[in-house]
Amino acid sequence: MLKESIVAELQKIVGKENALTSPEALKAYSYDGTTSWVHEPDIVVFPTSTQQVSDIMKLANAEKIPVTPRGGGTNVSGGSIPIMGGIVLCTTKMNKILKVDKENLTATVEPGVVLQDLTIRLMKDGLFFPPDPQSFLGATLGGIIAENAGGPACVKYGVTKQYILGVEVVLPNGEVVHLGGRTLKNVVGYDLLHIFISSEGTLGVVTKAELKLNPIPPAKKTIMVVYADVAVAGESVFRVLENGVIPDKIELLDNWVINRIEEMMPMGLPKDADAVLLFEVDGIPEGVEKETEKIVEIVKKYGAVDARVAKDQAEADKYWMGRKAGFAAVFGKAKTVFAEDVTVPRGQIPALINKCKELAKKYNVEIVVLGHAGDGNLHPAILTDINNKDHYDRSVKAMDEIIEGAVELGGVLSGEHGIGLEKQKFLKRQLEPAVIEMMKKVKALFDPNNIMNPGKIWE
Amino acid sequence: MLKESIVAELQKIVGKENALTSPEALKAYSYDGTTSWVHEPDIVVFPTSTQQVSDIMKLANAEKIPVTPRGGGTNVSGGSIPIMGGIVLCTTKMNKILKVDKENLTATVEPGVVLQDLTIRLMKDGLFFPPDPQSFLGATLGGIIAENAGGPACVKYGVTKQYILGVEVVLPNGEVVHLGGRTLKNVVGYDLLHIFISSEGTLGVVTKAELKLNPIPPAKKTIMVVYADVAVAGESVFRVLENGVIPDKIELLDNWVINRIEEMMPMGLPKDADAVLLFEVDGIPEGVEKETEKIVEIVKKYGAVDARVAKDQAEADKYWMGRKAGFAAVFGKAKTVFAEDVTVPRGQIPALINKCKELAKKYNVEIVVLGHAGDGNLHPAILTDINNKDHYDRSVKAMDEIIEGAVELGGVLSGEHGIGLEKQKFLKRQLEPAVIEMMKKVKALFDPNNIMNPGKIWE
Repeated sequence: MLKESIVAELQKIVGKENALTSPEALKAYSYDGTTSWVHEPDIVVFPTSTQQVSDIMKLANAEKIPVTPRGGGTNVSGGSIPIMGGIVLCTTKMNKILKVDKENLTATVEPGVVLQDLTIRLMKDGLFFPPDPQSFLGATLGGIIAENAGGPACVKYGVTKQYILGVEVVLPNGEVVHLGGRTLKNVVGYDLLHIFISSEGTLGVVTKAELKLNPIPPAKKTIMVVYADVAVAGESVFRVLENGVIPDKIELLDNWVINRIEEMMPMGLPKDADAVLLFEVDGIPEGVEKETEKIVEIVKKYGAVDARVAKDQAEADKYWMGRKAGFAAVFGKAKTVFAEDVTVPRGQIPALINKCKELAKKYNVEIVVLGHAGDGNLHPAILTDINNKDHYDRSVKAMDEIIEGAVELGGVLSGEHGIGLEKQKFLKRQLEPAVIEMMKKVKALFDPNNIMNPGKIWE
Repeated sequence: MLKESIVAELQKIVGKENALTSPEALKAYSYDGTTSWVHEPDIVVFPTSTQQVSDIMKLANAEKIPVTPRGGGTNVSGGSIPIMGGIVLCTTKMNKILKVDKENLTATVEPGVVLQDLTIRLMKDGLFFPPDPQSFLGATLGGIIAENAGGPACVKYGVTKQYILGVEVVLPNGEVVHLGGRTLKNVVGYDLLHIFISSEGTLGVVTKAELKLNPIPPAKKTIMVVYADVAVAGESVFRVLENGVIPDKIELLDNWVINRIEEMMPMGLPKDADAVLLFEVDGIPEGVEKETEKIVEIVKKYGAVDARVAKDQAEADKYWMGRKAGFAAVFGKAKTVFAEDVTVPRGQIPALINKCKELAKKYNVEIVVLGHAGDGNLHPAILTDINNKDHYDRSVKAMDEIIEGAVELGGVLSGEHGIGLEKQKFLKRQLEPAVIEMMKKVKALFDPNNIMNPGKIWE
């Protein structure tokens, strides 16, 4: 519980209407997109300026009160849960798109801008911001930066890091600093910008960001490819790439997901297929035509059963809608879902998929595989129930071995969801003790009182 | 001077043949690509393994001996000059390309691999590594990573940072750690990888790197565009981009450079043109055709005098050879050259060019402008003579105001050359005191004894 004087101070900083302490508000800001973590804050504040964020941090730092920054709260590793109580600093009222600079192909935004709103605004100028977490209807830029969001389009366009040129950050002590800038090239001292991107809100609060934009490609095409064996689908991914075709998306759905989609919204996906890959290519129309042909040729050569090119945008949209529904289906089908986020070098996708199949048998649990196959980032999901102890324990073991397996295959335990609360216990599987030590020292350097999103990444 | 026992220890670590102390060797490793800095080391060592690098660092750390890591020594900000003496740790004998992984589109290399050797090897597999510093005949991967090298191709492909997935690093205390990995997506703790890339050898020695590769685009085309006014050329850059065409290169040559090229190797460049832009587009043949047409259309609409599409690769090569000769010409024409590396948001290129023209008049010095216009990274060069005090002093003032001007235009003082020795005095123009403080603390964290390339970036 916060002292009344602190609550009064916070109300003074942001205005009474922007400082919530009602039970409903505290409950509303106690969870994120995970199914396993809940904790209420003592207060939720909605600053509307950098100055207010700075004043909040100064107060919190002096009083050693935990501050959990958040925007849309769509993240899926527990990152925006106020696990130690204290203040939730919600950026959703700092939601202005301050500038779209067509000449420089950049935009200046506040952290509370919802990705979808940005996308719509940029369309007017024929531009787009490539990072594409599938929570774009709610995800805000601050969170996208803090988590270094990915999504399906990274195979061609890369991750968030590659589209952030600079940020304004409020440090845990309330100081306002600027990292990076507005240019593509910038080598002036150490790259602190990239330390802040993907720091999961543990080093400071982003209050402004300079985004790099791309022109919208004039044409797109979707190809649905059917496989009798999911591991063969995995192979198709790198066969296409090694032949010089870089689609913007390559998404994988396994048999379980295909059947759930067909139950919910029949769209003619082949129910007996072991897996489907959805390819999207973009660019100028002539290029898109040619790459589409080449993909069809390559996947057939390497064992695909069928390859259907969507005849128009409506058919393409249907497939992509199915992909989105598939993810929702996973969460709807079990009380508890372990949604993994492992990533392996692309040549190892078949091995990872086979590993998941083996583990499903070994532990007698259902493991569903879908995800961003194009960049090796799969989301194997284990369907379980936290109240069924025996089943749950077996699922934990299976999850454990999936992560172990991904690391052994040269991969990482998180591709885009981050560590948050969910993956802390696995950190040591991947990082050397000396590296963990270095990272903890960086944390202590920027946040000596450990008030900035405490309990995340580091226990 | 090093104690004899230390020299003996170093000889023991790397072998006598790999530890040089002759006057010729010390002289050979006393300079880099700048014209202003020279300092001899006490010894030059050539380790051939990570273990040897680790042993060298342990010894140096215990004895507090400065270590300057270097590869080809082609850098142009003084970064590889052993300004405090001690050990030059030269990585040129760690020059193996350990793996080219076509399936994952990655390569594993040692730090001493010369960029050109990598390029030739990758061609066999139809792949390329996009960063393209123009010193590719001598530049080694370790230096390319340490300096976050750029070059002309960044307008489309971005900088080195975007192509380094992971590194093995020897820390100043000799510990060997691994940062990043082999996957495109990786959010596991803080991004220390990016702190090391562009740290100019002040935080550790890269001993291995995992590179991200692209398939070689099947077609290319070069367009030479002639302008009566260099500022109009600057405008062309962002007009092309804002119309959705992203060439892989847009290079600028001003009238002075054009005339020097024509003196050295006549190729029909228009001697009376105020500026020339060289565009290169790459991709599939149909796309290249279309983008070439579009560029010609756009530049003519926005005031270009002429636009010539190179009829074949031989003509294109001739123009690019001219571009390279132009840079050499600058250095050949004066005893002392200040080669600036300022970068501005692309919309500000005309303003920066006009600023250079004004300053040339104001200080009565010759300022030549060439560089990577496509990403706003220009290299205005001031031709002077360190022995002509009056002229030199005026040149220093002009350089000062160019940097001031670039920062005022929203730019940065170094786009790709780094701070090294050359730009230290300007750091405060761009970075806030709190940011400099943070960076210095990071340095102290990783290198408490300040033995790792001491005197660079920070005084």
